[in-house]
Amino acid sequence: LTTRLPAVGTTVFTRMSMLAVQSGAVNLGQGFPDFGCERSLISAVNDAMLADFNQYPLMSGAPVLRQAIAAKVKALYGHQYNVDSEITVTAGAAQALTTAILCCVHPGDEVIVIEPVYDSYVPAITLAGGVPVSVEMEVGQNGYTVPWHKVAAAVTSKTRLIIINTPHNPTSTVLRAADMQALADIVRGTDVLILSDEVYEHMVYDGHQHESVSRYPELAARAFVVSSFGKTYHVTGWKIGYVAAPAPLMVEFRKVHQYNVFSVNTPMQHGLASYMADPKPYLELPAFYQRKRDLFRDGLKNTRFELLPADGTYFQCVRYDRISTQTEAEFAEWLTTEIKVAAIPVSAFYQQGKESGIVRFCFAKKDETLALALERLGKV
Amino acid sequence: LTTRLPAVGTTVFTRMSMLAVQSGAVNLGQGFPDFGCERSLISAVNDAMLADFNQYPLMSGAPVLRQAIAAKVKALYGHQYNVDSEITVTAGAAQALTTAILCCVHPGDEVIVIEPVYDSYVPAITLAGGVPVSVEMEVGQNGYTVPWHKVAAAVTSKTRLIIINTPHNPTSTVLRAADMQALADIVRGTDVLILSDEVYEHMVYDGHQHESVSRYPELAARAFVVSSFGKTYHVTGWKIGYVAAPAPLMVEFRKVHQYNVFSVNTPMQHGLASYMADPKPYLELPAFYQRKRDLFRDGLKNTRFELLPADGTYFQCVRYDRISTQTEAEFAEWLTTEIKVAAIPVSAFYQQGKESGIVRFCFAKKDETLALALERLGKV
Ligand SMILES: CSCCC(=O)C(=O)O
Ligand SMILES: CSCCC(=O)C(=O)O
Repeated sequence: LTTRLPAVGTTVFTRMSMLAVQSGAVNLGQGFPDFGCERSLISAVNDAMLADFNQYPLMSGAPVLRQAIAAKVKALYGHQYNVDSEITVTAGAAQALTTAILCCVHPGDEVIVIEPVYDSYVPAITLAGGVPVSVEMEVGQNGYTVPWHKVAAAVTSKTRLIIINTPHNPTSTVLRAADMQALADIVRGTDVLILSDEVYEHMVYDGHQHESVSRYPELAARAFVVSSFGKTYHVTGWKIGYVAAPAPLMVEFRKVHQYNVFSVNTPMQHGLASYMADPKPYLELPAFYQRKRDLFRDGLKNTRFELLPADGTYFQCVRYDRISTQTEAEFAEWLTTEIKVAAIPVSAFYQQGKESGIVRFCFAKKDETLALALERLGKV
Repeated sequence: LTTRLPAVGTTVFTRMSMLAVQSGAVNLGQGFPDFGCERSLISAVNDAMLADFNQYPLMSGAPVLRQAIAAKVKALYGHQYNVDSEITVTAGAAQALTTAILCCVHPGDEVIVIEPVYDSYVPAITLAGGVPVSVEMEVGQNGYTVPWHKVAAAVTSKTRLIIINTPHNPTSTVLRAADMQALADIVRGTDVLILSDEVYEHMVYDGHQHESVSRYPELAARAFVVSSFGKTYHVTGWKIGYVAAPAPLMVEFRKVHQYNVFSVNTPMQHGLASYMADPKPYLELPAFYQRKRDLFRDGLKNTRFELLPADGTYFQCVRYDRISTQTEAEFAEWLTTEIKVAAIPVSAFYQQGKESGIVRFCFAKKDETLALALERLGKV
């Protein structure tokens, strides 16, 4: 069998999680909480199963869940998506991202990605026959920023799509209104589409606001906006997300979606819809995670790691130049096997594996877990 | 947005189900049971959620579920797949089929499909840049058969894959040992791969046996074999299936899988694994559905429809030439809106919409539902 994805191995998340298990390390690598979800969410799903919501839902998703999503987006970002034609429930955010890419990127089309880049985008572009074009974020004292003039310069007549991600994995950068204006200036008057990965939308700290593409009518009119329930409700293994997009884009999205997964787990959709009636869980999420972030950052200040800013997501990037000259992959492996704390090398988010002496920790963990990790990291 | 799938509209299943709801018709169209699943299966999933199996499972699937699948395949078909490297859990069988196609079909490659053909194969081939090559089943007094000499004649140096489906949707044909030998003769000495859609593997009647590709080492060595839990356990909305394939093929499958959905619903996987410890539910399935098939067939004998054989699946095809000269799509619509029984036109399973005067009913329904449908169909 001749591979269609020659550059692809097993994802860094899978590899580091396996190494963490083998090494008995505290796993601050792959991003997922080590605490449970709310019991009322579980009951809601159980109730849906017992009420026999176990057969195919509509291909676009259970209407109750699409309604709940539209209401949330309207309340938070002011944009009213049409419940029937502009929202589709997906088997996780990854499926939404890959399906969006497959539905609009034709062979030879260029897709602009911003590095460090989440590891699923480029393989999906390659599978579609598209050509990834990378623009690197710049990293300074204030963390990572997007050099929009370089994005503008990367646009050609072949550019089909620009993929953005805010809050950003792995750098924790939260795009600001000025970023969104810069993006709007770039795409105005072109037929370039936008794919916005906003799975960490409810994890923005220090009073910043999440600049969803949905807030900007000019951008929303040409964008697929993707989010995730797994991250928001501490159930990354449920693999449910959604995409919102203007109807003409959604028609094409659904053509691929319906033959990729057809539809998405029915009882989970109904359970989530009833749980979403109360906005408290996602409204309280920033404070919940900001406390953990602060606890983790405070602890790291007593180590030889240097902190980068962390305005959003549940990730914290750190420099380790005062500790080691190893490559990021080597250092992350050493941390995992010797120090017993797993991390993710940020180099894994660059197509050419750029070395910056930075690794990423996930702080979506019980306070005890963070304390144990900090104790071990303090010895480095 | 320029479409990547110009020929694709909304699936016939979605359209007919919506028309059924609007018309207040008994829905014998889209294939799904109208009865509940076993309560112990629901408890098993609830237990998994309460035990905090709610975060990402391994990308390939929960080990306990892959073990249960391998044990079942070994017990039924004699083939031992390696639990780690040869089985992957998928977000339904559709995702397995589309992912298998995307991982091995390169632009320009030919893929042989057998018509009538399940509606997801051709769009997935098109998305991969492949060229679908159709061979039509022949239909006579004994139902539909595959003309293997025509399949052999369709193989060229560009053929990458042959897709088969047994038990067959929509025709209910169950391939026999002679069919599998004919297929083996065709692929022997070539590098043509096989994708075998076996989602109705546990619905084979009258003492016939399911000829899984897994029974034939020569075929299994080059095949992706796909099945579904939704069909077997009356939970079509759970969207969990799996694919089994030799390790070198699975490596390529997982490259696409990990960026398509990454992984599949954790608590459902754990619940299914513990429920599968007892083989009774799938061992008793043939008798369960054969009784429904017989009940439905007996009832149809008192109508003007003519029965085709139904050796497997939960579908029954009927000729309606004694009733109408309408096209199949018109007739299915008329049945739905006027007679209040929804059916699926078999023409929807042909790329060029061939008319044979045949529609498909699904008999995975409560006895009362079948009785009501039969009463209405008796008036035609
Ligand atoms: C899909 S597994 C990895 C989870 C994640 O998004 C991350 O750790 O960055
Ligand atoms: C995936 S919706 C349709 C179910 C089905 O396979 C059928 O009715 O043929």
